[in-house]
Amino acid sequence: MKKILVLGAGLSASSLIKYLIDHAEQFDWQVRVGDMSEEVAKSKIGNSARAQAFEFNINNQPQRETEIANCDLVISLLPARFHHLVAEIAVQNGKNMVTASYVAPEIKKLEKECLEKNLLILNEIGVDPGIDHMSAMKIIHEIKEKGGKITSFKSNTGGLVAPKYDTNPWNYKFTWNPRNVVVAGQGVAQYISNGFYKYIPYHKLFTRVERAEVLEYGEFEIYANRDSLKYRETYGLENIPTMMRGTMRRPGFSRAWNIFVQIGATDDTYILENSEDMTYREFINSFLSFHATLTVEQKLAAYAGIDEDSETMYKLRWLGIFKNEKIGLKNATPAQALQQLLEKKWKLESDDRDMIVMQHIFEYEMGGKKKRLTSSMVVEGTDSVHTAMSITVGIPVAIATKLILTGVITAKGVVIPVNKDIYEPVLAELADYGIKFTEEE
Amino acid sequence: MKKILVLGAGLSASSLIKYLIDHAEQFDWQVRVGDMSEEVAKSKIGNSARAQAFEFNINNQPQRETEIANCDLVISLLPARFHHLVAEIAVQNGKNMVTASYVAPEIKKLEKECLEKNLLILNEIGVDPGIDHMSAMKIIHEIKEKGGKITSFKSNTGGLVAPKYDTNPWNYKFTWNPRNVVVAGQGVAQYISNGFYKYIPYHKLFTRVERAEVLEYGEFEIYANRDSLKYRETYGLENIPTMMRGTMRRPGFSRAWNIFVQIGATDDTYILENSEDMTYREFINSFLSFHATLTVEQKLAAYAGIDEDSETMYKLRWLGIFKNEKIGLKNATPAQALQQLLEKKWKLESDDRDMIVMQHIFEYEMGGKKKRLTSSMVVEGTDSVHTAMSITVGIPVAIATKLILTGVITAKGVVIPVNKDIYEPVLAELADYGIKFTEEE
Repeated sequence: MKKILVLGAGLSASSLIKYLIDHAEQFDWQVRVGDMSEEVAKSKIGNSARAQAFEFNINNQPQRETEIANCDLVISLLPARFHHLVAEIAVQNGKNMVTASYVAPEIKKLEKECLEKNLLILNEIGVDPGIDHMSAMKIIHEIKEKGGKITSFKSNTGGLVAPKYDTNPWNYKFTWNPRNVVVAGQGVAQYISNGFYKYIPYHKLFTRVERAEVLEYGEFEIYANRDSLKYRETYGLENIPTMMRGTMRRPGFSRAWNIFVQIGATDDTYILENSEDMTYREFINSFLSFHATLTVEQKLAAYAGIDEDSETMYKLRWLGIFKNEKIGLKNATPAQALQQLLEKKWKLESDDRDMIVMQHIFEYEMGGKKKRLTSSMVVEGTDSVHTAMSITVGIPVAIATKLILTGVITAKGVVIPVNKDIYEPVLAELADYGIKFTEEE
Repeated sequence: MKKILVLGAGLSASSLIKYLIDHAEQFDWQVRVGDMSEEVAKSKIGNSARAQAFEFNINNQPQRETEIANCDLVISLLPARFHHLVAEIAVQNGKNMVTASYVAPEIKKLEKECLEKNLLILNEIGVDPGIDHMSAMKIIHEIKEKGGKITSFKSNTGGLVAPKYDTNPWNYKFTWNPRNVVVAGQGVAQYISNGFYKYIPYHKLFTRVERAEVLEYGEFEIYANRDSLKYRETYGLENIPTMMRGTMRRPGFSRAWNIFVQIGATDDTYILENSEDMTYREFINSFLSFHATLTVEQKLAAYAGIDEDSETMYKLRWLGIFKNEKIGLKNATPAQALQQLLEKKWKLESDDRDMIVMQHIFEYEMGGKKKRLTSSMVVEGTDSVHTAMSITVGIPVAIATKLILTGVITAKGVVIPVNKDIYEPVLAELADYGIKFTEEE
């Protein structure tokens, strides 16, 4: 019998835990699920005899040590800053570990000890990062094996609402952390285009979108992520002339969102004077010059250089930003005030379904010819528990866990899934769960 | 005999030290001038028998204590972060102190001890802060005493080049710390207009300029400072509907500078890839999308929405930003790369003269009538040592020092010059040095 310890039973854990329990009998697993809230943990295991739920506090060191010492493999879905606390004890106790998060520097430090003890910490095996690595590396390796030379690699991902439930003028609802959406892109976006490094400041980011079609899902627009070059070496694309990672939205989103960026409504660095009693109309007006006769709508349209009858203005009006409704938040930053309004208007209702869209676009040269290959994946959520986000984060973690416990994955060290021995079996099984890529030349 | 200790003999100390030495015989002063560089200190005192120069290291605590213990009053013109080290020892030893800098929190803490020991730390008595406080408070008090109600107060200052030497298309040369000019305005500008709080994000700051005429010096443009509201309570203007502080430039400067802001060339938060070997043309191109045929000039004009034949493009070309000349700076941020170029092109030559412009614009109601009053000051530098900056920073510090030592200024505590007993005698004597305000109704 193998004991699997799952720490963290939040949103993204549902599909993972279901997979583990569904396979527990077959592989003789015991699944222990710990969460700050025992109730949440319980709700995820149902009445399986193969699973136990318990209250878990990451700051309780004796509990942390006891639980990890008693398992065969630990999966951490805790907030990213806690992973290293789990990893350090896992390595001390000779246990393998799996996470869906970026490799923290503290975890990278455990590399040597992992190798000495013949252990694996497998990171970045969720959706983004995770499925993006695996699906991209499969194609990169295939093109290279055929003697092709990759000249351009663009990789785009979006968490959106599924088409049937896509019912608002922004074609967007929150399917993940709203705060991350409101402050997305702050800082500078860096990428490389035709051999030139390019930098896009935040206030220009949403004006420099690209467009792409994805399968039968129609058109999307893409804005650049902060660091498109992070995996250049890891992917073996050191000298690639064009490389860019982006975030996908439906057409028109960026143009309208850009208005908030332009006026400064997404700023998270200062507190608005008297935000509690301020109305949303006053909030918008605080970014516009005083004028004795023009309305807030007129001033905004003029300042942003848009037509009052434009679709962008319709999107803004639809949000209620011109209403005399109080913000009601004490000491709010502009970003916090805006987020509160958006959370009401962009709410994913319990009978809505989310959708993850991912697309890689490769350009390469082979036999003197220029070629283009797109590889696209769309996953829709199945219900309000097994959302597309939960499925695409949790299922690859679960599959990798199974493959480690069954000895199929034999890698050691602090690893991300960019090698064939990991991505091949994981991708193969992901397809059974509807997580598959369609390639088009 | 009174001993005056001057710490720091840099640029802004020249006129101060000259005043002290010129008056040393009359008032029986000894002036000790300490600087990191003994040579610099020596160059400022000439061959006066009333003055000594010495090498001074603020981090040498015994030296700090000995020097301060042996003086009657200490003037600190050190970098602002060191003032509190001077102030703490001054108060311990029962000495008065004068600085031209903002009141640091560590200095504010000495208030109680100052009052107990009957001491004065007089701060913010340079030009800005300093002359701005004194000249504004004089008018604020006068309007209030006549029963007027101030409805709007705008206060603008600029460090510029004097008209005769104003020979480049930007109508600007560096007369002070270039770095502060390159990153000026980053963050958010806050002010109050007709009773409404207003916020301007950095990327809009240089598009929201105001205009003003100053005496016979013609037209200036003004962009808002970061915090226009800092002195609202200090000035007794708690409920004023409009208050704004700004920085003055010549017309056209902001429109051209805004291009650098828009493309992201003033960003100081990240390092450019390979900045050493990059040319300025490549630097500008790194902020623009790749295009197979358009030139960098064409792309910039299109991106910024300006005409290639416009005066703004002329200003940019004049700087040499489209030249294939290497930046030659390792690990430079965009702001650092830009600053290096500007330091060559905007250099104040030794036979150039600088100019400080300050203007207060008041609107007030009196006897049922709306009135408007402007109070304007322009000071030009007299030579390359006694610049307008050195004169307007140093002379008020020197005058205040004299007035403290002669018992005219009797204030105690941690003080800025907003009360009549300080600003009245200082302003009166400043006029003798050509530092005077012209009021126009």
